[in-house]
Amino acid sequence: MPAFELDPRLARDALPLGALNLCVLLLMKDARFPWLILVPQRNNVSELHDLGAVERAMLIEETARAAIALKTATGADKINVGALGNIVRQLHVHVVARFEGDAAWPGPVWGSGSPADYADGAAEALIAGIRNALGN
Amino acid sequence: MPAFELDPRLARDALPLGALNLCVLLLMKDARFPWLILVPQRNNVSELHDLGAVERAMLIEETARAAIALKTATGADKINVGALGNIVRQLHVHVVARFEGDAAWPGPVWGSGSPADYADGAAEALIAGIRNALGN
Repeated sequence: MPAFELDPRLARDALPLGALNLCVLLLMKDARFPWLILVPQRNNVSELHDLGAVERAMLIEETARAAIALKTATGADKINVGALGNIVRQLHVHVVARFEGDAAWPGPVWGSGSPADYADGAAEALIAGIRNALGN
Repeated sequence: MPAFELDPRLARDALPLGALNLCVLLLMKDARFPWLILVPQRNNVSELHDLGAVERAMLIEETARAAIALKTATGADKINVGALGNIVRQLHVHVVARFEGDAAWPGPVWGSGSPADYADGAAEALIAGIRNALGN
């Protein structure tokens, strides 16, 4: 089986945060929304139903674990979860911390405006907070 | 345990299509996109992580089953899956058939324009096709 390769656009638009059993975990480079992406480490998978049932169960458990950590680290009002893949076809799951009144509220973050850069050290501080919450 | 109650906005905006083991299955009243909604029959649940692990595994299996049926019935290019809940807080999962060049492509369907009415009989024909695909 060839080694897993992360889609180059995901690699460009996000920072590595960690690895779970099935997925790599990324933080989107967008200071407007604390925004995680889970990517199952499987090649040639673009739909949920391309995964086997065991991998799907792992994926939703890892999604829930990431959601809890993100909510703990940020105090979000709501977590949004999505797997779209209209542009990047490699299966990836967005887990986004939403706040009432944020830049896209109550609409979706996808396709809403342009990413904002994190201030120096801010992404690293958020990553540390999420890693800490994941460890608990 | 009180009986499950479907959120009134979901009941207004969608047609009943069927029931799986955990979820009721609805078709959104929007002819622009073949669009299913799965609602776990549990009260007071708004996040994936409010469900137990067994229910989450059921939810992702039912989501994959709905996605396959929708793709079979429509020939969609891509399936979009999302659980947002910024407006309707009752946990519900969108499963949307997307086509290259459709009314929102490649953006998300949520927050994009206004729903279009189905022509007479068209929603019923689509529901019949999806039910048939679910049965296979």
